[in-house]
Amino acid sequence: MIRCRLIAHTRKASEWTCSSATWIVKEAFAMQRYGSVIGVKPEAIAEYKKHHAPVWPEVLEMIRRCNIRNYSIYLKDDLLFGYLEYHGTDFQADMAKMAADPKTQEWWKIMGPMQRPLRSRAEGEWWASMEEVFHLD
Amino acid sequence: MIRCRLIAHTRKASEWTCSSATWIVKEAFAMQRYGSVIGVKPEAIAEYKKHHAPVWPEVLEMIRRCNIRNYSIYLKDDLLFGYLEYHGTDFQADMAKMAADPKTQEWWKIMGPMQRPLRSRAEGEWWASMEEVFHLD
Repeated sequence: MIRCRLIAHTRKASEWTCSSATWIVKEAFAMQRYGSVIGVKPEAIAEYKKHHAPVWPEVLEMIRRCNIRNYSIYLKDDLLFGYLEYHGTDFQADMAKMAADPKTQEWWKIMGPMQRPLRSRAEGEWWASMEEVFHLD
Repeated sequence: MIRCRLIAHTRKASEWTCSSATWIVKEAFAMQRYGSVIGVKPEAIAEYKKHHAPVWPEVLEMIRRCNIRNYSIYLKDDLLFGYLEYHGTDFQADMAKMAADPKTQEWWKIMGPMQRPLRSRAEGEWWASMEEVFHLD
């Protein structure tokens, strides 16, 4: 049951089933890729970049403790693209852990006003999730 | 000299020097990350996705032969975000090899009309390069 729940938030409901134990075990321990996008206020771009070189060590440590690896943010014009690889087994729980961390909250309070979330983002999102349309290992 | 040239196109000129052999050797063999972005015509999104599941095997093989690994394309609204890791030693030469491949050219002829490159892209670019503002391994 835990494994089924794990897959439920990483795959569309139509794509997963609990009928194949082999498939579930294989999927449950695979790394998941996430792409996300957000706007940045043009007048805040310089400040945003300054903050990210370097990011506070406590914030970096919390990201690592939430099982995220190979995380990058790219900038073009007024758009920020995030790409990360999740190596844990419960993405939602890890995201909740990160959101509850005081230092991370302090960081987000500085970053938030510089960002301009997409109107088309899903409910509850800040950075909008993107659909993976292609992948090559 | 080869190593200096190698670094010249992966780092801004102000960031590299040929005076430290150790640094050059370390940098020359490191993997480089590239983020890129392009628009997609809203009316072509469904067709674009259909083509990418799956991509022609000859095109995938050429990408691999050009030392690219962990390549993903993400979609949000009418934007496509590409993220790749380059594991070779001469990115420009590998890109030229890819551009000269007849099957890749045939693929690009189908993809091109569906895409809408950013006006702000650099000269000679199709997908616009993005600046990496943050990375965590």
